[in-house]
Amino acid sequence: MSALQALLRPRSVAVVGASADATKTGGRPVGYLLRHGFAGDVWPVNPRATEIAGLPCYKDVASLPGAPDVGIVLVGPERAEQAVRDLAAKGCQAAIVLAGGYGETGEQGAEKQSALKRAAGSMRLLGPNTIGVVNLSDHIVLSASGALEFENLPPGGLSVVSQSGGILGALLSRGAAAGIGFAKLIATGNEGDIEVAEALDALVDDPATTAIALYLEGLRNPARFRAAALRAAAAGKPVVAFKVGRSEAGALAAISHTGAMAGADRMYDAFFAGLGVIRAERFSDLLEVPAALAQGRRAAGFRVAVLTSTGGAGALVADAVGLAGGSLPAPDAGVREKLAALLGEAPVGNPVDVTLAGVRPDLFRGAIRTLLDSDGYDSLVVVVGSSALAQPELVADAMLEARGDSPKPVIAYVSPHAPAIAAGLNARGVPASTTPEGIAAILAALARPLPALFTPSAAETPPSMPRGKLNEAESKALFAYFGIAATREVSAATPEAAQAAAAGLGERLVVKLLARDLAHKSDIGGVVLNVTPDRVAEVGAALLQKLPEAEGLLVQEQIRGGIEMILGLVRDPHLGSAVLLGAGGTAAEVFGDTQLRMLPLSRSDAEAMVRGLKIARVLAGFRGAPAADVPALVDAVLAFSRMGESLGERLLEAEINPLFVLPEGQGVRAADGLAVLG
Amino acid sequence: MSALQALLRPRSVAVVGASADATKTGGRPVGYLLRHGFAGDVWPVNPRATEIAGLPCYKDVASLPGAPDVGIVLVGPERAEQAVRDLAAKGCQAAIVLAGGYGETGEQGAEKQSALKRAAGSMRLLGPNTIGVVNLSDHIVLSASGALEFENLPPGGLSVVSQSGGILGALLSRGAAAGIGFAKLIATGNEGDIEVAEALDALVDDPATTAIALYLEGLRNPARFRAAALRAAAAGKPVVAFKVGRSEAGALAAISHTGAMAGADRMYDAFFAGLGVIRAERFSDLLEVPAALAQGRRAAGFRVAVLTSTGGAGALVADAVGLAGGSLPAPDAGVREKLAALLGEAPVGNPVDVTLAGVRPDLFRGAIRTLLDSDGYDSLVVVVGSSALAQPELVADAMLEARGDSPKPVIAYVSPHAPAIAAGLNARGVPASTTPEGIAAILAALARPLPALFTPSAAETPPSMPRGKLNEAESKALFAYFGIAATREVSAATPEAAQAAAAGLGERLVVKLLARDLAHKSDIGGVVLNVTPDRVAEVGAALLQKLPEAEGLLVQEQIRGGIEMILGLVRDPHLGSAVLLGAGGTAAEVFGDTQLRMLPLSRSDAEAMVRGLKIARVLAGFRGAPAADVPALVDAVLAFSRMGESLGERLLEAEINPLFVLPEGQGVRAADGLAVLG
Repeated sequence: MSALQALLRPRSVAVVGASADATKTGGRPVGYLLRHGFAGDVWPVNPRATEIAGLPCYKDVASLPGAPDVGIVLVGPERAEQAVRDLAAKGCQAAIVLAGGYGETGEQGAEKQSALKRAAGSMRLLGPNTIGVVNLSDHIVLSASGALEFENLPPGGLSVVSQSGGILGALLSRGAAAGIGFAKLIATGNEGDIEVAEALDALVDDPATTAIALYLEGLRNPARFRAAALRAAAAGKPVVAFKVGRSEAGALAAISHTGAMAGADRMYDAFFAGLGVIRAERFSDLLEVPAALAQGRRAAGFRVAVLTSTGGAGALVADAVGLAGGSLPAPDAGVREKLAALLGEAPVGNPVDVTLAGVRPDLFRGAIRTLLDSDGYDSLVVVVGSSALAQPELVADAMLEARGDSPKPVIAYVSPHAPAIAAGLNARGVPASTTPEGIAAILAALARPLPALFTPSAAETPPSMPRGKLNEAESKALFAYFGIAATREVSAATPEAAQAAAAGLGERLVVKLLARDLAHKSDIGGVVLNVTPDRVAEVGAALLQKLPEAEGLLVQEQIRGGIEMILGLVRDPHLGSAVLLGAGGTAAEVFGDTQLRMLPLSRSDAEAMVRGLKIARVLAGFRGAPAADVPALVDAVLAFSRMGESLGERLLEAEINPLFVLPEGQGVRAADGLAVLG
Repeated sequence: MSALQALLRPRSVAVVGASADATKTGGRPVGYLLRHGFAGDVWPVNPRATEIAGLPCYKDVASLPGAPDVGIVLVGPERAEQAVRDLAAKGCQAAIVLAGGYGETGEQGAEKQSALKRAAGSMRLLGPNTIGVVNLSDHIVLSASGALEFENLPPGGLSVVSQSGGILGALLSRGAAAGIGFAKLIATGNEGDIEVAEALDALVDDPATTAIALYLEGLRNPARFRAAALRAAAAGKPVVAFKVGRSEAGALAAISHTGAMAGADRMYDAFFAGLGVIRAERFSDLLEVPAALAQGRRAAGFRVAVLTSTGGAGALVADAVGLAGGSLPAPDAGVREKLAALLGEAPVGNPVDVTLAGVRPDLFRGAIRTLLDSDGYDSLVVVVGSSALAQPELVADAMLEARGDSPKPVIAYVSPHAPAIAAGLNARGVPASTTPEGIAAILAALARPLPALFTPSAAETPPSMPRGKLNEAESKALFAYFGIAATREVSAATPEAAQAAAAGLGERLVVKLLARDLAHKSDIGGVVLNVTPDRVAEVGAALLQKLPEAEGLLVQEQIRGGIEMILGLVRDPHLGSAVLLGAGGTAAEVFGDTQLRMLPLSRSDAEAMVRGLKIARVLAGFRGAPAADVPALVDAVLAFSRMGESLGERLLEAEINPLFVLPEGQGVRAADGLAVLG
């Protein structure tokens, strides 16, 4: 048994600093262990007590009758280090340290936390500053959370890892009240040792866990998280994450170059998207969405039928589903016919309103069955109206009976204040929400295909690799090695040489300073467009006067008729590298029309990036303009991904701006670019 | 007493079709009237009963002892018309018809509804298909809503008008459970007579109402709604509206010309914004936001202090507030000093975390007082953590005592499942929410300045006004009358005349077909840029060959160095006219960078429109480019508004595309435009 598995399913638990006073925080864990039905050994440790809650109390850890699988450390930070040292010496597998006052308080606290880790030796640590572990599948609660005062905590398939103990308690109490059953809940707190990625990994191996919710403030080990999330995806266990820090992203996004434009929070978006981790938008989604996913029924698409006995609530749900990208197709002829036979009149649209037919269980069941059987719908929402207040079982029973073994999800929107109805539905496996937005978020998640996992391509390394900031010509040569064509161009040291070399590049040329800095070059007016071949020397000389330290000049064909894009590779020192694709010119920056995805990219990822841009409409041929060469753009995106994978950490930054996408069949051209190699 | 006031505060109520069986819908209204404390006369009408709920029952309306102020009609649609006729004949002021099966079912139902209205004569009608009226201020419930089964419906300042009875019931039951007190709730149903605008108007005059929530599916009488909303604003009664139909807007917005680009739902946005009506984004906001506004404390800005005893929940709130546009300034030196004296350590940031200091009432009160007294904050959020589960009164009392008579709002985020705590806070006047997003929405609304009402300018009419679709020259002349300068240009009937007239317009010219259709002109390539003066005749002749029926040619100076915008006037046949301003070229359409406001516009409205565009960064001078003449752009927006007001319904459509905004001090130029006059 690994230490993590021991933490989830200990056979013996020592409670160091247990108090005989059940009203104190120190008195709770022993009481909670017993009350929630722990079947193993509980060993309270307290030098000033001989018995706690009917159990013999030990004066110190050394006196325990054996090595506990888990030790809960309830003493304050001044004594916790010794307790941890004692537990490690006794052979304990994992200790949970509840006390705060460590890393979260500053430098001194961080030192104290390091000392705690050292005291643990090879024993594993959860915390400090944690609320512990709750295992409802096996009735083992290793926590002092007040949420455990709730008597009926239903077991279920949803597991939670939270970096905040308070949030864990909130999710547990809110979930229990809503009838949502949990498997395991782990608060990782300050993550002095065990952090969220390792906890996630352990849950992938937990048979009771069918979906996982994560509350995150940041990831200490993105590589391990990546591996664990991919294992979860492979095991078919959906992961939903709520991460705070979204509003800082707005500020960061204002900065102009691609790195900052991506923004740290957007990098998390890209990171999660690449792993198939669903990012919860609202906090309530962190409970409702994975709880619905935990039920196992997935939707093949986002075509939703809404059955209602109250028009207003049906409209609310329809509106929210539409906003989230779902569709509500009207019933087809077959469905209309069956419903007319059932209800006495054909429904006019979707939501299907049964108000006038009256809310009778048989009609309800028939309508549910009819809508579920239709090929036109992927999922069904049943609106629970105020009529259900009088007969709470009517709707629930009808839903459960009528859905039978249909593989399609059936979920409920509860319109009036009726917490018992919502909880009853959730408890019986019908996901229920009291907000239209929650319904839409659940359906969107159920309709989301499982992530397609693929093997990244093998690394390629160009034969010669310079270092540091590359100039434009060097950068384009690097990009060309990976398959991205550049504008036709020549570089020259002097204006005269440039003029001579420019012959044959076209009637209109671009003359640029050859400098190692894209921004610098354009800021000082180092790029001149629309130059005729006879004026290259003159223009070049003027340019060199502006920046005498320039390496020379670059003369290139001027591209006409292409669509300007920006293609970048952004390296987050923490999360890894991502490809950024956006509309070029001011659009990327001013309108924020960019897409970001972590490496490695599959072709369908690259295609989805292009599709996700607003400028996609222009690429497809806008107002009579010819369609652009989108396949070549997708190839360029994949080339950047391959380059990023091949060069790894050596490639610090890369950007093509603009990348011209020419009309269909004519490819792309990198018109300017830079790369920085470490 | 007006009929509307009688409906809200009747002295006598006839219940036509009252049932002696309290479990039936027909048995509820009499029971509810008595149970909720109606002090006036209740007259049940039922030919098959002599007594209902201890009251004498009348065999028909004619036998009633007098003219009732209000009649509730519980009979089905087949008998409701006669009941309405009888009530009108008896001199009743207003009838409430609960039955459905009218306008909502199609054409036949609509006819039945008209007949019902005719039967009412001068008596006013609420419904049909309504759930009635609930007046909690005066203990008068005229409804069969199951939500009235709740015993303790607290009175308060929030009033509701809903076009859906089910939604009214949901709001009432959810509000009551959350401790939110109501004044009046009115379901207008099918609006056969009384519609939402009239109900809103009546609530403006209701002294118990301090804020108003509206659930809308559409407005039958926008002009009356406008007048009522302005009266509400003048009376200082905030109005919050939730309107369904947002997801259709996405589809409509895809169409390219400004009218459709605006989209019906965006027109509602503009309509509400112009009236100071706050549009609720999520359904739960429709309850929480006006309930908070009803408490009367407003914030001078959106600088928020967050006080928490649980770090995770504080982070959630901070993130949501930041996303909604609020700021969380760190405590200044004075606040830090006071908090250090109080808590034993200076807080490092905002949220102010008091975890380590312990949750003691005196510390809590001191911290609340300190943060409220600081000039650095406009409002305060207190996070209620799980520690409050054990001592629910601790936090609430501390909040109430410490806020004292501070004019700043104090609101609560309740983190664990603790409905009694949230309800207790709301009931005692501290707005409480269980979602971080709700907290942010409440604070945003509290920080929103009351709408500035102003008098529209006097109408001006140009001396000569053509009709129909104007050509470019005529359109620009109209715009010039209202003060918008056009490009210098001449029109000519023939290519030769055009060449002759072009002298002096500049070195680079634009030659266009003079046609009455902007889209048509550019679709067939009827605009040629970069023409040298010597080639005007040649280019003009080629153009005229493309569209022989053109009226002639237009030769104009080619503008350089300006920023292209689009300025439009969009007339919604239902809601009225709005000005649309956006980034020009493909940006308006592809990136959707547009702003829409209903007429009339004040200068600050016009300035806010410019500020609200993403392209505002470019107008301000982007990457070293000169700043554009924003004041001239604001003048142009106001000119369009004035034109719209002056011409009223005669102006069906107007658009300048592109409108060039030149560098500071140089004004704007309309380079192309059209107007359609009715």
